[in-house]
Amino acid sequence: MFRPEIERMRGYQPGEQPRGTKVVKLNTNENPYPASPKVAEAVAAAVPSLRRYPDPHATAFRMRAADVLSQQSDAITPDWILCGNGSDDILTIVTRTFVGEGQVVRYATPSYVLYQTLAEIQGAAQEIVPYESDWSLGFEFTAPDERLRLAYLANPNSPSGVCLAPGEVAAIADMLPCPLLVDEAYADFADTNCLDLVRSNERVMVSRTLSKSYALAGLRFGYLVAQPQVIEQLGKVKDSYNCDALSIAAATAAIDDQAWLEENVNRVRAGRERLMGGLEGLGFAVTPSQANFVWVTHPRVGHDQLYLSLKERGVLVRYLSYPNWGDGLRITVGDDAQIDTLLAMLGEMV
Amino acid sequence: MFRPEIERMRGYQPGEQPRGTKVVKLNTNENPYPASPKVAEAVAAAVPSLRRYPDPHATAFRMRAADVLSQQSDAITPDWILCGNGSDDILTIVTRTFVGEGQVVRYATPSYVLYQTLAEIQGAAQEIVPYESDWSLGFEFTAPDERLRLAYLANPNSPSGVCLAPGEVAAIADMLPCPLLVDEAYADFADTNCLDLVRSNERVMVSRTLSKSYALAGLRFGYLVAQPQVIEQLGKVKDSYNCDALSIAAATAAIDDQAWLEENVNRVRAGRERLMGGLEGLGFAVTPSQANFVWVTHPRVGHDQLYLSLKERGVLVRYLSYPNWGDGLRITVGDDAQIDTLLAMLGEMV
Repeated sequence: MFRPEIERMRGYQPGEQPRGTKVVKLNTNENPYPASPKVAEAVAAAVPSLRRYPDPHATAFRMRAADVLSQQSDAITPDWILCGNGSDDILTIVTRTFVGEGQVVRYATPSYVLYQTLAEIQGAAQEIVPYESDWSLGFEFTAPDERLRLAYLANPNSPSGVCLAPGEVAAIADMLPCPLLVDEAYADFADTNCLDLVRSNERVMVSRTLSKSYALAGLRFGYLVAQPQVIEQLGKVKDSYNCDALSIAAATAAIDDQAWLEENVNRVRAGRERLMGGLEGLGFAVTPSQANFVWVTHPRVGHDQLYLSLKERGVLVRYLSYPNWGDGLRITVGDDAQIDTLLAMLGEMV
Repeated sequence: MFRPEIERMRGYQPGEQPRGTKVVKLNTNENPYPASPKVAEAVAAAVPSLRRYPDPHATAFRMRAADVLSQQSDAITPDWILCGNGSDDILTIVTRTFVGEGQVVRYATPSYVLYQTLAEIQGAAQEIVPYESDWSLGFEFTAPDERLRLAYLANPNSPSGVCLAPGEVAAIADMLPCPLLVDEAYADFADTNCLDLVRSNERVMVSRTLSKSYALAGLRFGYLVAQPQVIEQLGKVKDSYNCDALSIAAATAAIDDQAWLEENVNRVRAGRERLMGGLEGLGFAVTPSQANFVWVTHPRVGHDQLYLSLKERGVLVRYLSYPNWGDGLRITVGDDAQIDTLLAMLGEMV
């Protein structure tokens, strides 16, 4: 009855989402601070419109986002932007637009495990390129392959937090024989981003989300920046009304509040430095992070054991283990009190 | 660069969604009355949770919906329910779970044109069975075909508003060599529904939406009822967080308010009878409707001309033309004032 590709799948396992509020939740890279207060106002104002279908093109958001992005890059107009129900929806749309059954996608590992799920659902083959030990990418990532249709690159990457420079990504895109989706879920926390590459190479697409830097993981709102002729094809694959009226209103208000974003990002970056310093002080090997989380390993104590001990004491971090690669802990940057709690507990464990 | 299936597509064209409020909008089957007031309360209460990811399983909604549906059918538990970002998302998930490239889907015409779009995106072939002139389905709809993987049946159908009896649908499902998706977007306005068939046949799935009868088109919330082992496979294909925190809260509050639903459905049905009577009085052929719209043709006046004349005067209805079948107008049941306005205008045109 089912497609064999689907029956074979294990399915994507999202990080634990306990519904209680007592847990110190440092496992899914949520922002520790509440979203801009303008979001609540915009949501309340949009409720009376729920009787009607939403704008299928999320025009209000695209206009505001185009203004904001144009200040960071060359001029971007709304026809360079596609909105999605979270950037997972964007990744799904991109995959379905470029990759047919039996064709090939490429991505690096360890990285966002959704790329594997999307390939499996599409019935595509996967070329999985291990990161070098310094988190650089070897020549296999750009090697020719006739069946290759799409490459995904999380930048900054998760779980490492490492960010390739735009010049490196440009070189990768130029060598790749297929389109490149640069997944910039964490770019607002980084020193650089790849927005400028979209203009010079029609095969580069950059996805963003409001889940992390705008503190709106519950809203499900992401967007893609690509050349207009690419956006046009992708628009055929998205559900017509993929963004609801409340999320469009909320996302528009959020991206409009760049003062809030700047202050929030500065706080998270300061927390990141403090967290990295504290973990190094406890003997962890800490990968320098450009995101709102850090990837750590410890030379002596088992990572799964640390994860479980923390969980028992009400602190959730992400334990991740990659075949033929190794394991470690990915720890979200919390607020100051959460960082203190975590460091104190770890201090008793290592 | 793109899949040829996508480049060839025209893409689904949603009904016009003018952003102004002065238009009498009877073209996309929105409910003329505002949603339950409990929706606004639930949304406001959910805003502070937006920092965190939503419940990937929309458990609160599924628990409440299971209670409500169990009063209309045999006992249904939450594991029989899958939630989606509108029932379009449900249709997408179902299609991707059952249908591979080069396999076949079947649906009747005229019906919801999204079925064609979903088949095209999936690279599937389409068997399109014309309705008989009395809107019954001939034997072709259940004919054997080895490559057939999924059949869609809108019931009540759009644009006709005709609803096949559960016994007829059960017979179709038994004869079909593949799963059957019964798209019940309009079932709350009908005298019967097919919920009971899900228990007796694992290949029957019933989709619902809150867009129409709950007056929440802007919210994007739909759900599927199917046997748990089917829900399990479908769950691998959906985006992990396909429903956002605000829509889960709003949908849960909406389905909890069955008193509101009953009153609303009664008002819409009363409006439907009045609209049908008025249109018949003007010489239209009116198909008896079980939905919140009516399908009409006129023996003398061109339907496209009527559509344009109404639009010029600020009333939007849906003009639909089907190849080798014919055309007509699909008119949403508005409130009393909207029905009066429409009938008065049409009275001057025919």
